[in-house]
Amino acid sequence: MQINQNFDNIAQSYLFSTVAKKQREFQAAHPEADVIKLSIGDVTRPLVPAVIDALHAAVEDQARQETFHGYGDEQGYSFLHEALAGYYRTHGVSLDTDEIFISDGAKSDLGNILDLFSADNTVLVPDPVYPVYVDTNVMAGRKVIFADANAGNGFLPLPDAGTACDIIYICSPNNPTGAAYDRAGLQAWVEYANAQHAVILYDAAYECFIEDTGLPRSIYEIEGAKTCAVEFCSFSKMAGFTGTRCGWTIVPKALADGKLNKMWLRRQTTKFNGVPYIVQKGAAACFTEAGMQQIRETLGYYKQNAKVLSETLDSLGIWYTGGKNSPYLWLKCPNSMDSWTFFDYLLEHAHVVGTPGAGFGKNGDGFFRLTAFGDQQRTVEAAERLKKLLG
Amino acid sequence: MQINQNFDNIAQSYLFSTVAKKQREFQAAHPEADVIKLSIGDVTRPLVPAVIDALHAAVEDQARQETFHGYGDEQGYSFLHEALAGYYRTHGVSLDTDEIFISDGAKSDLGNILDLFSADNTVLVPDPVYPVYVDTNVMAGRKVIFADANAGNGFLPLPDAGTACDIIYICSPNNPTGAAYDRAGLQAWVEYANAQHAVILYDAAYECFIEDTGLPRSIYEIEGAKTCAVEFCSFSKMAGFTGTRCGWTIVPKALADGKLNKMWLRRQTTKFNGVPYIVQKGAAACFTEAGMQQIRETLGYYKQNAKVLSETLDSLGIWYTGGKNSPYLWLKCPNSMDSWTFFDYLLEHAHVVGTPGAGFGKNGDGFFRLTAFGDQQRTVEAAERLKKLLG
Repeated sequence: MQINQNFDNIAQSYLFSTVAKKQREFQAAHPEADVIKLSIGDVTRPLVPAVIDALHAAVEDQARQETFHGYGDEQGYSFLHEALAGYYRTHGVSLDTDEIFISDGAKSDLGNILDLFSADNTVLVPDPVYPVYVDTNVMAGRKVIFADANAGNGFLPLPDAGTACDIIYICSPNNPTGAAYDRAGLQAWVEYANAQHAVILYDAAYECFIEDTGLPRSIYEIEGAKTCAVEFCSFSKMAGFTGTRCGWTIVPKALADGKLNKMWLRRQTTKFNGVPYIVQKGAAACFTEAGMQQIRETLGYYKQNAKVLSETLDSLGIWYTGGKNSPYLWLKCPNSMDSWTFFDYLLEHAHVVGTPGAGFGKNGDGFFRLTAFGDQQRTVEAAERLKKLLG
Repeated sequence: MQINQNFDNIAQSYLFSTVAKKQREFQAAHPEADVIKLSIGDVTRPLVPAVIDALHAAVEDQARQETFHGYGDEQGYSFLHEALAGYYRTHGVSLDTDEIFISDGAKSDLGNILDLFSADNTVLVPDPVYPVYVDTNVMAGRKVIFADANAGNGFLPLPDAGTACDIIYICSPNNPTGAAYDRAGLQAWVEYANAQHAVILYDAAYECFIEDTGLPRSIYEIEGAKTCAVEFCSFSKMAGFTGTRCGWTIVPKALADGKLNKMWLRRQTTKFNGVPYIVQKGAAACFTEAGMQQIRETLGYYKQNAKVLSETLDSLGIWYTGGKNSPYLWLKCPNSMDSWTFFDYLLEHAHVVGTPGAGFGKNGDGFFRLTAFGDQQRTVEAAERLKKLLG
């Protein structure tokens, strides 16, 4: 056979392995140092009681012939479609349940959705960016172009009507920058996409961190979005499901005259076999009154960390995006240090680990990502060290 | 954007929807009829106690900060790699743990593996066949050619050295025919594939039904297979995980000088985020002594159904494949009926539903699939009705 030669064109990213290696080497050289990781992109709080109870109950269902669940529909159980439709109604978005597809996570769907598009399409992604948007397209041989995100536009680039493209990635609130589009910003992208007959792949994985009621939580809050946007979201950050795996994708029937909705159903029924019944029951429990309340408490824990870090950067006069409406803080490295110099400086002098922005694209250099997913006490301690070092 | 036009070339299969519609209409017209479904391709027995206990324990892990599991490695936890390597050792197959990739099921991997190959490759599939082998390749624009499986070769076609191809699908024990290759048959395919520099995608989802110790349970029992074959397997039929979702794929490092192993790792780390921790713990429990014992009992239940149906066909003098080493029985329709005529005849006169072979490819016409996944008492009752009608 001939292998897919496009794999040779994927850039190898050594970002997280280099971060880990540098940390390991520092710790070996300074065994007494109490290193705090603010680089972590994974949740750390356990699943909430309402979810745990639902998971146990669903396990019991699988233990008895009368309540056993074998194959379910690939696109998920209707109990979860209905719960999600209800969740969207609270944002003022009305969806048909057959526009909602349950999956094992946004990452899978963001990659797999590309099966629906021609390899000749041109893809527009922001720089800096979550690397899989680029890699999945390079694997398929698509041309990737970039929209510059930088301090000048608050890391929220707007469309350039002179640029032609077919597929547009938007992540808001953004990973890694924490910046979140307002309605006007998303409206501009929706109008551009509709004019270009392009599709927006909208990654809403961090929408649960939005607190400003003025900011859209779903792209479908924007007029015209249903004719140009697919939305991806997940229980990962919302409910701590990073290791429990459940997400969803909205493919509106207004998109390409219903063609993409039908194609995605066909793709999923042919190349996927659904999310575990147990997991879907756990996910649905998020939308009960108790579940919602408990999830908000966990999110509040992380938001408090973000607040601590925001206030620290404010007090130091360091420019940053995120920290509000996002678990990420994306700061300009002090004294014009480049990302990796600042990484070393922070590790050596404050024993704090973050993520160098340069790892997310050329516009990331000179910037640095901190996250709010750590332990509260440790985050406060890290903030004190930052103040001491950089104050 | 331009959509992937290849989707227009996927044949619409109305097999199962037509079966369901005919059954519904018959039941509506004959509300008193006690219809028995021997068409079911899904397991019906609950998960075994060892798995249930492990699932509950893992749910509890997710409830506590100290034992909480967020993102795991995309390719799965090492506890499950090691358990699977041990399982393969019992077949005499030695694997490195980094040749084993955990996934949400064989169907996903059988589709997703195609990302690794050029769209120009030619694909060889048997006819009749599990439809997704064809559909996933048509979606990607690959040329599909067929190897005729028929009564003459016992529905176990052998390679034709004159046929050139790049990707070969083999499912053994086969769905829908129940036929299982012996060592000589698989050896012929392995030699052909190595000679052609083709890759075999070996679907072993039904290996757990093999009882004859002379039959291979893994393609890697065949010399030379590690340089030409990827093997897909699943907990679905082995342990009733059709609704719990866990499978695995073996990509040997001897294949294409290790290139495919690395590419699959890259594909999975980029477009997948791993199987739920809870589910992997449940899957690992299958390999405990208690788990294995309990799973064998459940498989024994289905095997007993297969035996009842085999003996019935034997007593009726009806030609069939499968029934031994497989949950499927693939029978020649009596009196030269075509598949759908026999379907109607059986439904009307015995109130038994099966699956018309014509739905699996042109060579399936005149054949009919029964399955052993039903209730034991109902299967015995169905067998009695078959004897009465056809005897």
